[in-house]
Amino acid sequence: MNISEKYKEIRQATIDFCSHLELEDYSIQVVQFASPAKWHLAHTTWFFETFILKNYLDNYKEFNPNFNFLFNSYYNNVGSRILQTNRGNMSRPSTDSIYEYRTYVDTQMQVFLKTISDKEIINLITLGLNHEQQHQELLITDVKYMLGHNPIFPVFNDNYALVHGKNTSVERVSVAAGIYEIGHQGADFCYDNELGVHKVFVNDFIVNNHLVTNGEYMEFMESGAYTDFNLWLDEGWSWVNNNTINAPMYWHKMDVEWYHYTLSGLQKVDRNAILCHINYYEANAYAEWKGMRLLTEFEWEIAAGQLNWGPRWEWTNSAYLPYPGFTKENGAVGEYNGKFMSNKMVLRGASVATSKNHSRPTYRNFFNPTERWQFTGIRLAK
Amino acid sequence: MNISEKYKEIRQATIDFCSHLELEDYSIQVVQFASPAKWHLAHTTWFFETFILKNYLDNYKEFNPNFNFLFNSYYNNVGSRILQTNRGNMSRPSTDSIYEYRTYVDTQMQVFLKTISDKEIINLITLGLNHEQQHQELLITDVKYMLGHNPIFPVFNDNYALVHGKNTSVERVSVAAGIYEIGHQGADFCYDNELGVHKVFVNDFIVNNHLVTNGEYMEFMESGAYTDFNLWLDEGWSWVNNNTINAPMYWHKMDVEWYHYTLSGLQKVDRNAILCHINYYEANAYAEWKGMRLLTEFEWEIAAGQLNWGPRWEWTNSAYLPYPGFTKENGAVGEYNGKFMSNKMVLRGASVATSKNHSRPTYRNFFNPTERWQFTGIRLAK
Amino acid sequence: MNISEKYKEIRQATIDFCSHLELEDYSIQVVQFASPAKWHLAHTTWFFETFILKNYLDNYKEFNPNFNFLFNSYYNNVGSRILQTNRGNMSRPSTDSIYEYRTYVDTQMQVFLKTISDKEIINLITLGLNHEQQHQELLITDVKYMLGHNPIFPVFNDNYALVHGKNTSVERVSVAAGIYEIGHQGADFCYDNELGVHKVFVNDFIVNNHLVTNGEYMEFMESGAYTDFNLWLDEGWSWVNNNTINAPMYWHKMDVEWYHYTLSGLQKVDRNAILCHINYYEANAYAEWKGMRLLTEFEWEIAAGQLNWGPRWEWTNSAYLPYPGFTKENGAVGEYNGKFMSNKMVLRGASVATSKNHSRPTYRNFFNPTERWQFTGIRLAK
Amino acid sequence: MNISEKYKEIRQATIDFCSHLELEDYSIQVVQFASPAKWHLAHTTWFFETFILKNYLDNYKEFNPNFNFLFNSYYNNVGSRILQTNRGNMSRPSTDSIYEYRTYVDTQMQVFLKTISDKEIINLITLGLNHEQQHQELLITDVKYMLGHNPIFPVFNDNYALVHGKNTSVERVSVAAGIYEIGHQGADFCYDNELGVHKVFVNDFIVNNHLVTNGEYMEFMESGAYTDFNLWLDEGWSWVNNNTINAPMYWHKMDVEWYHYTLSGLQKVDRNAILCHINYYEANAYAEWKGMRLLTEFEWEIAAGQLNWGPRWEWTNSAYLPYPGFTKENGAVGEYNGKFMSNKMVLRGASVATSKNHSRPTYRNFFNPTERWQFTGIRLAK
Repeated sequence: MNISEKYKEIRQATIDFCSHLELEDYSIQVVQFASPAKWHLAHTTWFFETFILKNYLDNYKEFNPNFNFLFNSYYNNVGSRILQTNRGNMSRPSTDSIYEYRTYVDTQMQVFLKTISDKEIINLITLGLNHEQQHQELLITDVKYMLGHNPIFPVFNDNYALVHGKNTSVERVSVAAGIYEIGHQGADFCYDNELGVHKVFVNDFIVNNHLVTNGEYMEFMESGAYTDFNLWLDEGWSWVNNNTINAPMYWHKMDVEWYHYTLSGLQKVDRNAILCHINYYEANAYAEWKGMRLLTEFEWEIAAGQLNWGPRWEWTNSAYLPYPGFTKENGAVGEYNGKFMSNKMVLRGASVATSKNHSRPTYRNFFNPTERWQFTGIRLAK
Repeated sequence: MNISEKYKEIRQATIDFCSHLELEDYSIQVVQFASPAKWHLAHTTWFFETFILKNYLDNYKEFNPNFNFLFNSYYNNVGSRILQTNRGNMSRPSTDSIYEYRTYVDTQMQVFLKTISDKEIINLITLGLNHEQQHQELLITDVKYMLGHNPIFPVFNDNYALVHGKNTSVERVSVAAGIYEIGHQGADFCYDNELGVHKVFVNDFIVNNHLVTNGEYMEFMESGAYTDFNLWLDEGWSWVNNNTINAPMYWHKMDVEWYHYTLSGLQKVDRNAILCHINYYEANAYAEWKGMRLLTEFEWEIAAGQLNWGPRWEWTNSAYLPYPGFTKENGAVGEYNGKFMSNKMVLRGASVATSKNHSRPTYRNFFNPTERWQFTGIRLAK
Repeated sequence: MNISEKYKEIRQATIDFCSHLELEDYSIQVVQFASPAKWHLAHTTWFFETFILKNYLDNYKEFNPNFNFLFNSYYNNVGSRILQTNRGNMSRPSTDSIYEYRTYVDTQMQVFLKTISDKEIINLITLGLNHEQQHQELLITDVKYMLGHNPIFPVFNDNYALVHGKNTSVERVSVAAGIYEIGHQGADFCYDNELGVHKVFVNDFIVNNHLVTNGEYMEFMESGAYTDFNLWLDEGWSWVNNNTINAPMYWHKMDVEWYHYTLSGLQKVDRNAILCHINYYEANAYAEWKGMRLLTEFEWEIAAGQLNWGPRWEWTNSAYLPYPGFTKENGAVGEYNGKFMSNKMVLRGASVATSKNHSRPTYRNFFNPTERWQFTGIRLAK
Repeated sequence: MNISEKYKEIRQATIDFCSHLELEDYSIQVVQFASPAKWHLAHTTWFFETFILKNYLDNYKEFNPNFNFLFNSYYNNVGSRILQTNRGNMSRPSTDSIYEYRTYVDTQMQVFLKTISDKEIINLITLGLNHEQQHQELLITDVKYMLGHNPIFPVFNDNYALVHGKNTSVERVSVAAGIYEIGHQGADFCYDNELGVHKVFVNDFIVNNHLVTNGEYMEFMESGAYTDFNLWLDEGWSWVNNNTINAPMYWHKMDVEWYHYTLSGLQKVDRNAILCHINYYEANAYAEWKGMRLLTEFEWEIAAGQLNWGPRWEWTNSAYLPYPGFTKENGAVGEYNGKFMSNKMVLRGASVATSKNHSRPTYRNFFNPTERWQFTGIRLAK
């Protein structure tokens, strides 16, 4: 697939997901970290307009000069922007005008794509497409957050619950101690944070091929784990108590049964399905309770070839820090990853909400240890 | 006009205003005190469903059992409800379904209205209609707040700026000391907080027939008033400093000129037009600066017959407290007014956003002294 | 008693109270509104230094130039000052040096007092002495707050519980409707907020000569009043719920008995003693529950001559607002009262903690409706 | 030195430091993370009473049953405790009674120490003594914080500025790539977080033998670094802006010169002295500005033998996480380290405030990346 076809396919995937939204769903922001769908649609378009069309297309005429202020996410190098908390305050520009913006930019991009061969520009466009795929996953999880916090639990799509995957293997995988190479190799796309191939020494370890299930996690809950401080990191214990947490996100006990909100509405929790929507503190406490532990991100990368992974982002016990020799790119795209390297934990793998062709063994995702609105899961090791 | 015609006219006025909204404008909540348009549409309908149809119409079938939770505002007697801050989190129910709700309730109300003669029920319906008129004004001011805080300052309606009224008289009115009767008399509708006719003694006073203009207020600003603590109440001074206030709400200085957001978009401030969007602290500080004072609500009511009033709600120097002999009504409608009688100041008169036939000299409006998103103004006395 | 003797007596009373403190008790600030004892000692001294000695005593040498910043309370006209919340952060200046400051200023004041006859200066000194008396009461209540929130409930003084007063009469007093004069008359000292004698019209009313007792209030509690929203003002109901209030301040249920912290330590609540430490919302809810009401401050002043008052400050149903014709004094002392005239309720009478000769029927005290660390009580009327 | 002598020496060192305090200095808490001196004195004593005397001394009689509630820091296994923010609210128990508590416990400990030979108990006592030494350092930094935030900048001790150390070497140290062993070996005391000797692979690196000086940091400041977002981690940039930071903690610009608060009072900043009181974000930004980087904690440990270290705790670029094979100890002492392993960065080395014999190359200190009240510094590498 050439870059022009890739562009069309990936941009279309965003719109396909949105086709299930009501017009009212596009503008709402329920919580700071979850942006409105309208904002995702505009921001991913803004990326191509700002970094490609404005810089490289002769005589490009900006769609609307306000949009840089409205749809810049966090690029300080590209000027001031509205506060993240205010993204949901904007009824205007209308959703229609955002779709017009997409069409306008896509049309010009297609013209431009036919003419270019400059490797650096193609790399930047490829970054833009990977950026769009990241936002596709956020779009799904942000929509789920909005609808899942609506007291009437609306159905997004009857055939799109996303949480029913099951383990197909219960074996364990053994890895021998030694020096291994970590980091992305080869010419394919990767983010700057995966670069800097380097050696690490790891000890022998054994890791489960399967992920923790809802039923296993219920046992943890039923054992009183949410009230046993000995299982929790200090900040995790504060989080549990300050927010009176007693179950994964989206779980509701109705009479004696646990239900959880899915994009297909409220459903009974399936004990055999793979657990999701837990944060690092919960993952860590569960491992503690089992007398096991989480993998480091290095162990994960080494073992990945032997593991069934993919349905859930997996919390590792590695803080998100630069690889040796990490260097930020120049200018605004250098803000993509490096500046977030504090107080985040690394997740490895992918999730049911990850876009097609957007995962690889060296991929490093990262979130605050408190967050659980992604499709996160637990893999145990020792 | 009979009750059935009144019902139709007042209910229609709400929809007429909303006809200028984009669909995206219905669901957004920018700040706790300003509710989404969709919520106003539903809540005023909920009032008739809850207090009339459910109680008095045989075999009435509730439109949707979730709506009591979603659209109850503050009536503890009618059950639990979502938090006021969360009203803007609900993309669903859709705007269309809220309009269906209105049609459903209006249809049943029209059937019901043809059959009733019970005075008490008619009074309750009249309360519901006055309640709807109050929400019409809030709808205007809440929409203005939402659009006026959008960085692109959208135009709601080109012919609906609402802020250009001018004074037609600059005389002063004198009132002689003596005992006067305060409170609503006669059979017409009024709120419970206007009842309890009682005597008050007032001293001689003189009051301006005109309201303070933008130009007069600019002189106050230019004198450095926002940085002179001697003019301000202690809490007002904190409010000014904590929020770095230096002008009325919606005013923006662009180069050397003041502009303000109106429902017709950003416009240059007209020095001759009547000032609005100032709070009690600003009104009080302005009076202090002029060596004059605000009226008490009693003085206002006594002088009202001789004053030009109507374009701006006027801040008085009276706290909102019960009249002698005030008694709450029984049940939920008793929550209408009485429970707000602390830390509020009384406003008298009406405003350009007040619905037709919804003002009278005994009307007592009330807001926190910090609030200024209503069309408020200043009248001076001594 | 001449001004010099008065000065000596009143200044000494502050020190007498402090003689029961441990050195550790002088510097702690537990909550923003309660200042450390050391601060009270210094601030009352600062008043005389700033407003008298610096202005009127030739060649007066300031004790310490830092003290204006440290011990100014809220007089914007006298320069910047530390934040009220930071008063408890200062271990230094030491308590000893504050006592030296008092001695230094008192010595110079005594010299100065012998020479003066200027009426205006004497009035200012009298204001300073009344100011000191107000701080004496705050000193008592602030110390009680600090010790009463210490988990070991220390005894301040075995013979100083302050809360055991009982009613001596249960009659009711009737007052006839008519015009009455309100406000301070005569040449004795009063605050500026008592001035502006003016007429008010009041209706007939009946008022209890006795104050509500602990036992009566327990009945209110036992009736479930703290969970019945119908009894509460809207802001009061929020206050109850946000702070999970179910009893007056300092009350603790131990097994089945109620105890309360007093300055003589934890003691069993005496059902016959007069209730104290309730706020305006509680006073108002209690009156509502009894089917009665609080007095206005005008009714209180009119009836005062026939009432037993003194042991508890009594909440009225009047907001703290200026009397007709109120004018602030010029300069810093003009900040004494007027600028607090918003969101406060008036209390009338005095309390067991009020200094000798520091009460009169026209005295207007005022606090936020949420506050209850003063020795406040309830008198009912109808 | 035997355990009894060690106990005496270390316990005495705490008291020696406190001998310079005024009585008023013992009880104040200015900020949540800095505890009052009185609390440190009591808490370190509580450790011996709780973990040694109550468990192992027959017929031991607790000094005061309230003290477990008052002076437990964060040991959930030892019961409930007062909130950390409330430690400064307690004027009582008095400082004298805390000294009595120390004497009481020390007397019994000395009796007990003479009788014991049980290795496990001796280890626990050794842990208690190391715990006391950690609190000695916190005591110094907490006292500095309290006095350094007092607007009159009191002198603690004229000969105890602590910040004047200078570099004695400007060489660089090279380390060759390879596998190295990390973690504490041998029988001497160490914390549980240092255990689990394990191999790591490190690349070649070069590291400065000297620490960054005040003068070098001033160049960074003068270059506009505090306003250049490209130098900062995202959370660091928020921290700078939310707190309007433009210099290290305790620095104040007076006219054109920088002064900083030291325990000997305000002093002019010496450009040649070693920088301190910067946080991880500042350390990281400085390294970025220099085109260099911080060491990882592993690199630091490997190079330690060739480095001059000691005057400043050095920020590393390692998150505080468990070593492979880390296991918490059973019971309350298991809460010592492990539960803090999230959102902290590791510091290595020691500081001028570190107690004698309380440092070693494997020691892992850890703080939030925002904190800078410790004597922290910067060492650069590449």
